Amino acid sequence: MLIKPGKLLAEVNSPEDLKKLDKSQLKAFCDELRQFIVDSVSVYGGHFGASLGVVELTTALHYVYNTPDDQLVWDVGHQAYGHKIITGRRDQFHTNRKYGGLSGFPKIKESEYDAFGVGHSSTSISAALGMSIASKLDNNKDKQHIAVIGDGAMTGGIAFEGMNQAGVLNSNLTIVLNDNCMSIDPNVGALKDYLTDITTSHTYNKMRDDVWHLLGKISKFGPNAREVVSKVETSIKSFLLKQSNLFESFNLRYFGPVDGHDVDHLVEIFNDLKDIPGPKILHCVTRKGKGYKPAEDGNQTTWHAPGTFDKITGEIHKKASEKPQPPKYQDVFGHTLVELAEKNKDIVGITPAMPSGSSMKIMMEAIPERAFDVDIAEQHAVTFSAGLATQGKIPFCNIYSSFMQRAYDQVIHDVCIQNLHVIFCLDRAGIAGADGATHHGAYDLAYMRCIPNNVVAAPMNESELRNMMYTAQLPREGAFTIRYPRGKGVMPDWRTPMKEIEVGTGRCIKQGKDLAILTIGHIGNYAVEVTERLSEQGIEIGHYDMRFVKPLDEELLHDIFKNYDKVITVEDGCLPGGFGSAILEFMAENGYSAKVKRLGIPDRLVEHGEQPELHKECGYDPEGIYETCLEQLEITVPKA
Amino acid sequence: MLIKPGKLLAEVNSPEDLKKLDKSQLKAFCDELRQFIVDSVSVYGGHFGASLGVVELTTALHYVYNTPDDQLVWDVGHQAYGHKIITGRRDQFHTNRKYGGLSGFPKIKESEYDAFGVGHSSTSISAALGMSIASKLDNNKDKQHIAVIGDGAMTGGIAFEGMNQAGVLNSNLTIVLNDNCMSIDPNVGALKDYLTDITTSHTYNKMRDDVWHLLGKISKFGPNAREVVSKVETSIKSFLLKQSNLFESFNLRYFGPVDGHDVDHLVEIFNDLKDIPGPKILHCVTRKGKGYKPAEDGNQTTWHAPGTFDKITGEIHKKASEKPQPPKYQDVFGHTLVELAEKNKDIVGITPAMPSGSSMKIMMEAIPERAFDVDIAEQHAVTFSAGLATQGKIPFCNIYSSFMQRAYDQVIHDVCIQNLHVIFCLDRAGIAGADGATHHGAYDLAYMRCIPNNVVAAPMNESELRNMMYTAQLPREGAFTIRYPRGKGVMPDWRTPMKEIEVGTGRCIKQGKDLAILTIGHIGNYAVEVTERLSEQGIEIGHYDMRFVKPLDEELLHDIFKNYDKVITVEDGCLPGGFGSAILEFMAENGYSAKVKRLGIPDRLVEHGEQPELHKECGYDPEGIYETCLEQLEITVPKA
Repeated sequence: MLIKPGKLLAEVNSPEDLKKLDKSQLKAFCDELRQFIVDSVSVYGGHFGASLGVVELTTALHYVYNTPDDQLVWDVGHQAYGHKIITGRRDQFHTNRKYGGLSGFPKIKESEYDAFGVGHSSTSISAALGMSIASKLDNNKDKQHIAVIGDGAMTGGIAFEGMNQAGVLNSNLTIVLNDNCMSIDPNVGALKDYLTDITTSHTYNKMRDDVWHLLGKISKFGPNAREVVSKVETSIKSFLLKQSNLFESFNLRYFGPVDGHDVDHLVEIFNDLKDIPGPKILHCVTRKGKGYKPAEDGNQTTWHAPGTFDKITGEIHKKASEKPQPPKYQDVFGHTLVELAEKNKDIVGITPAMPSGSSMKIMMEAIPERAFDVDIAEQHAVTFSAGLATQGKIPFCNIYSSFMQRAYDQVIHDVCIQNLHVIFCLDRAGIAGADGATHHGAYDLAYMRCIPNNVVAAPMNESELRNMMYTAQLPREGAFTIRYPRGKGVMPDWRTPMKEIEVGTGRCIKQGKDLAILTIGHIGNYAVEVTERLSEQGIEIGHYDMRFVKPLDEELLHDIFKNYDKVITVEDGCLPGGFGSAILEFMAENGYSAKVKRLGIPDRLVEHGEQPELHKECGYDPEGIYETCLEQLEITVPKA
Repeated sequence: MLIKPGKLLAEVNSPEDLKKLDKSQLKAFCDELRQFIVDSVSVYGGHFGASLGVVELTTALHYVYNTPDDQLVWDVGHQAYGHKIITGRRDQFHTNRKYGGLSGFPKIKESEYDAFGVGHSSTSISAALGMSIASKLDNNKDKQHIAVIGDGAMTGGIAFEGMNQAGVLNSNLTIVLNDNCMSIDPNVGALKDYLTDITTSHTYNKMRDDVWHLLGKISKFGPNAREVVSKVETSIKSFLLKQSNLFESFNLRYFGPVDGHDVDHLVEIFNDLKDIPGPKILHCVTRKGKGYKPAEDGNQTTWHAPGTFDKITGEIHKKASEKPQPPKYQDVFGHTLVELAEKNKDIVGITPAMPSGSSMKIMMEAIPERAFDVDIAEQHAVTFSAGLATQGKIPFCNIYSSFMQRAYDQVIHDVCIQNLHVIFCLDRAGIAGADGATHHGAYDLAYMRCIPNNVVAAPMNESELRNMMYTAQLPREGAFTIRYPRGKGVMPDWRTPMKEIEVGTGRCIKQGKDLAILTIGHIGNYAVEVTERLSEQGIEIGHYDMRFVKPLDEELLHDIFKNYDKVITVEDGCLPGGFGSAILEFMAENGYSAKVKRLGIPDRLVEHGEQPELHKECGYDPEGIYETCLEQLEITVPKA
């Protein structure tokens, strides 16, 4: 089913078409664009609130600026649906986030209008600044470079690093601060309070006005007063203009706050800003979910990416299920953390702006004084955890696997080198699904296992996750990393009693001969399907859930390599340097020479799609593992 | 030779002893402490300017605060010599940075006074905030937590992430901003300008004073004026107090700027600050090298870590050399970059605050408009480079290997996933030497080679570095990473003509039989010594400089594994997941089963010392490689 666009939108196949509209038609166009997004997402799913919030901003930007020659960088990018629809992708939009379809984020390869590929937050200022400097070097004085960044993304350290340089390089950089008081969850830090203060009290502008008003009145009181006034006027002026605003501290000219839903006014402002040289910031106040009442009035976190819904009633569709479903690993994490924290008063929970996604919110509700949302700030989250650990607290620092890349130095330098007891829970490890290449937690096993003083574990099911979490918080030194995938486990009855697992021990799932499958993490359940299928065919192969990539269970591995001369390793992670490589290292160190086939994420980018689709593409879905088994056994069987 | 302390310092073996001094003696104590640092560093070498700059600050902090119960976190930590001397390490101080001696940085294991281990910058606010929250959870209301952070370190994004959370958590956190306008090189960004503005014009405080003064005078002009005044007074007051300062935007109470060399005043201030609850920042203005004239007046970058020097004349000792010496890899990089950039107008150089250390300053002097120092901001450096690359520029982004850990997500997300042509030059790769565990570039081969769209190369000598740099800037897609160590190469005549190297090709250094050594990078020169030594003994083994860890030279490897059944891999990098593992992966994929012994940095922390000392400790100095060869060949020869 193709979504039918309104009649103005139907004619817009590029920003050039948009520019043909009369300014008086823009409001109507925005209504149609908003409706198209509502219609599409309600049927096909995807991110929602963020794109609705920037309909006017998107329209005004493409109406005024000369895209794609002018460079438009969307921070994070899940707000770029309107941008995609305007820039020639309206009729493909129903493939958004589907396997083989449009990406849910801007992507250089997808369109010349996507100036920069995004997905993780806070990169837009640095990227657009780089673009603006390139233009400056090329003497391209008219070219504009616009970074649209949310107030949530603004808390990420790289945004400040970018502003620090932007303020001293006199380039055509326009930062649009899209201030909606939200990341996916509400923002919480000092910056949010600051922006709210500017916006709600209008102190900043009011102050300017008041002072000049005052000076004007006072000077009427006679020559004495005039003298006093003139004496301080200069310093007040320069002070207020240059230093009275956070952003002006960085030497960025600050404009705003303005209503981000007034498209006419936005068009005027952007037309003005184009003529003002140098780095500047426009503070736009918007509302996530704007124009769709259930999203605007309801829980904005829910409406960030609601799945499909009834656009009339606003009822979000739930998948019907006949039998009890296994829980999401995320919820197992959240509830188990509370269970542990209730018994161990030293446990503290930390999330960088992902309380809902990680289910840290369960602890934030149950034990608020010991659960911290630190905003989008992965680096700080890890070093904050390290600081807590020096004082005997036991931090569970939950960060998505692909976001932990942003705190890699902090993991090494502030936790592992200092041998501090911090527990890292890496959510969304392995193939993440519809969010695509930027969000797959592909590299964590490789980048984590090369660090000393770091245990690296991955649970095969809910019970194992609980036991690993229990084990991790027992007294010990050093980091303890537990990685698990996005989505459901396998145990509807998952509240098993917790028990300690000896660190560095794997388990035999099935004895066999000739061939052994060594797995790490949830993906081991695929191997169970395979060994059962082979067993039905009279082929008994072994299966071992290694549980720990670091330290490896050397005793178990000696057993395995003494008994099997063919081995398949399976991991939901990158092949270079990952779990399979750790096995090869063990073999080399111990002089084993079994034939080893490693399955995992290949050394290339894997795009978006459903997890099983992508596992299949990578060759480690059940069918892929099955076929690899047959190949290793040199058995030719007709394909299933 | 033990350095003799002055008579006050001689009695101070702990902060408790310091507290026994009368306040009137503190100036004299500071003089003695400063002299002790000058005496020590002039003889034994080490960091210099930074510690001299905080003599008064260090003294005042330990005089006022109840360390080690109060937590004192030194950002970066090369300014902590005075701290170490006061806290019981005076008589060991001559072992500073020596193998087996004191660390050049604070280190938790070394002393209970070292509240947090440091080395990389910008972590102190997050760490101290974590500590302060732990105290709050423990209801420890009097405990103080102090982060001392330089204005250079303040540009690192994590510092802002930390302030953002500090401003909303009401804990006992005191940030001391040690403002000396320098990192190792002078700071350059907007923040520096901002701090200079506050400091030199005193605008901020002057503004406060002026406004109140003005309001006072005006109100004398009669009831009308009084009305006007009272109307705006409140808003002006709250505005000036709360929002007129960058740090107050983050809801931190700002005090200062104060003279960081007035120890008496500092003692007063810290006594006052102790009684003010909540997060606050004290802005201290100091001078690097303070009190030692040659350092104060001379080039502060030179005096950051001058080596040994004549303390009377200020002449820095140069190592005498009879024959022409090979250049440092750093200088080969710098000069070669200029050579390339002169021919290729698209080349741009980027360094995060390391123009001297990396020798990027050579390009900054030769072609200033295309060379950028972005302050301490590795994340931004990489994404800024990515932005430049989208516009056809060819960025050479030079970052120390261990600091690149801080931009890991940007490498993955902003460069490699987008397949942008950015050249990463990883300086100080491998064992870095006296700076120790925090600075060894141990993990880069592992964390870089797992990323798709990334070439990873390491030159064995100066000529190879030049050829790799030449090759890297030729038209291509994707990242190109070149890593090389700190220090000298092997070619006194290093300005060889540049030529393209086919990406993913190694080279045979020496043919042999039975055993082959596969090396990557400069460490290959050790293997040359070994094969020559063995050759003199009639044993001819092969040696291959693989040059690329990614992509591997598969053709060469097939040759090698067809001709040798014993292989040693040698890398100046971590064993888990590194170069040797890449070789094992190739073998597994191609069904080879040679006996492989991997040499490299073991899976534990390696502390500080001279590079050769540490290579020996790790077993891959020439002697270690030699012995491994004999072992592999199963030859028993008496040790050399």
